[in-house]
Amino acid sequence: MVDLASLTVALDGDDTLWHNEAIFQKTQRWYEDLLTDHGVSRDLIHDALIATERRNLSLYGYGIKGFTLSCLETAVALTDQSLPAESVLAIIDRCRAMLEESPTPIDGVVEALTFLGPRVDQLLLITKGDLLDQERKVAGSGLTDHFADVHIVSEKDPATYRNLVSRYRIDPSRFVMVGNSIRSDVLPVVEIGGHAVHIPYHITWEIETVAPSDIGSDASAAFVTLDSIAELPGALNRL
Amino acid sequence: MVDLASLTVALDGDDTLWHNEAIFQKTQRWYEDLLTDHGVSRDLIHDALIATERRNLSLYGYGIKGFTLSCLETAVALTDQSLPAESVLAIIDRCRAMLEESPTPIDGVVEALTFLGPRVDQLLLITKGDLLDQERKVAGSGLTDHFADVHIVSEKDPATYRNLVSRYRIDPSRFVMVGNSIRSDVLPVVEIGGHAVHIPYHITWEIETVAPSDIGSDASAAFVTLDSIAELPGALNRL
Repeated sequence: MVDLASLTVALDGDDTLWHNEAIFQKTQRWYEDLLTDHGVSRDLIHDALIATERRNLSLYGYGIKGFTLSCLETAVALTDQSLPAESVLAIIDRCRAMLEESPTPIDGVVEALTFLGPRVDQLLLITKGDLLDQERKVAGSGLTDHFADVHIVSEKDPATYRNLVSRYRIDPSRFVMVGNSIRSDVLPVVEIGGHAVHIPYHITWEIETVAPSDIGSDASAAFVTLDSIAELPGALNRL
Repeated sequence: MVDLASLTVALDGDDTLWHNEAIFQKTQRWYEDLLTDHGVSRDLIHDALIATERRNLSLYGYGIKGFTLSCLETAVALTDQSLPAESVLAIIDRCRAMLEESPTPIDGVVEALTFLGPRVDQLLLITKGDLLDQERKVAGSGLTDHFADVHIVSEKDPATYRNLVSRYRIDPSRFVMVGNSIRSDVLPVVEIGGHAVHIPYHITWEIETVAPSDIGSDASAAFVTLDSIAELPGALNRL
């Protein structure tokens, strides 16, 4: 049993601390309605948009601005270049409104952070996406004071986590990452020898999903999955 | 005369270390040509685009993705919503290509960094914009090894600089910021009691320009302006 006071516990932001994917999916339903009004089959839209997002990921990165550009590109392609300019404007406006939505903390988050803050070595927030928008969400969440530091990164891969633990001069065995994404919050942390706690959100962006067969039995054994963040203090005690 | 070895010297990236605004202006000329082909008067385009960028700045922040969205929004407005979908796609494609342009270091940069690196306390790179794109430019510039640390920030205001000097536990009087923007690299640094060195680039994005009457005589006396980064070592010696 590990000493809580020796742990650096890092938490993901989107869909771990506050609701995020639900906002994207609401916009995406609106977008699908718009394109079906232009005669596009609903079945095509979802797959085409994901394919565009995937293609653009290495240049646009994560976040609402890149999502908006991928929505526009996909809409033009799916309407055989007949998309009217007013729909272009509607997509831009609707997506920009997402940048103004206040983040809502997920149930149990405030209680878990309040409990853990004084008991662990340090709490960190590690989130990926557009810099300004992630800063806005961090500030708007009202959770900043719980964290010793906030890191906004462009990608959560083993190199990112390796840099972070070396920056804090901590052994990976004292580092725990908590998040909703197997791809971003769990597998790369396990790879560098850290602990990971998976707390699934009820919906996952397709690009963040990982097939169970891709996880591997070694990695599966190396992390725990919880139903809710309320179970986090107990899970850390059992590490 | 100040001891070089006591100074933290921070340099801006875009248009201080590598060419950037020239890439935007090239795209902007292409964009103006496109819209004049759609019957828009050339005089209107520049002012309308700047106005849209200014309006969107607090939500989009700096960078190519926000620029692309502002270009699209402006184009739809200026063509009375008659912009054809193929032009939407052309704007998206042309702007995305900017994300693939390799940054070219400005003449004298490598020599100045090579000279200063071993002589000052530390060299920092402080740049603002989209996280992933700025990371790409930093890496692509080939200059990373000259810097003790790189900070990509969403805004360069007094609070940003105050956080940075306190993070490094340095007195502002030992901090020198070097950059091409009076608004971002000079005035906020002078405001927190640091030194600033202004190295103008031959073109400046309108949103970064500051009217001479807005600088104030106190601030004017507090920074030096150089013709080229080659003059930086000498200017630091005379601080």
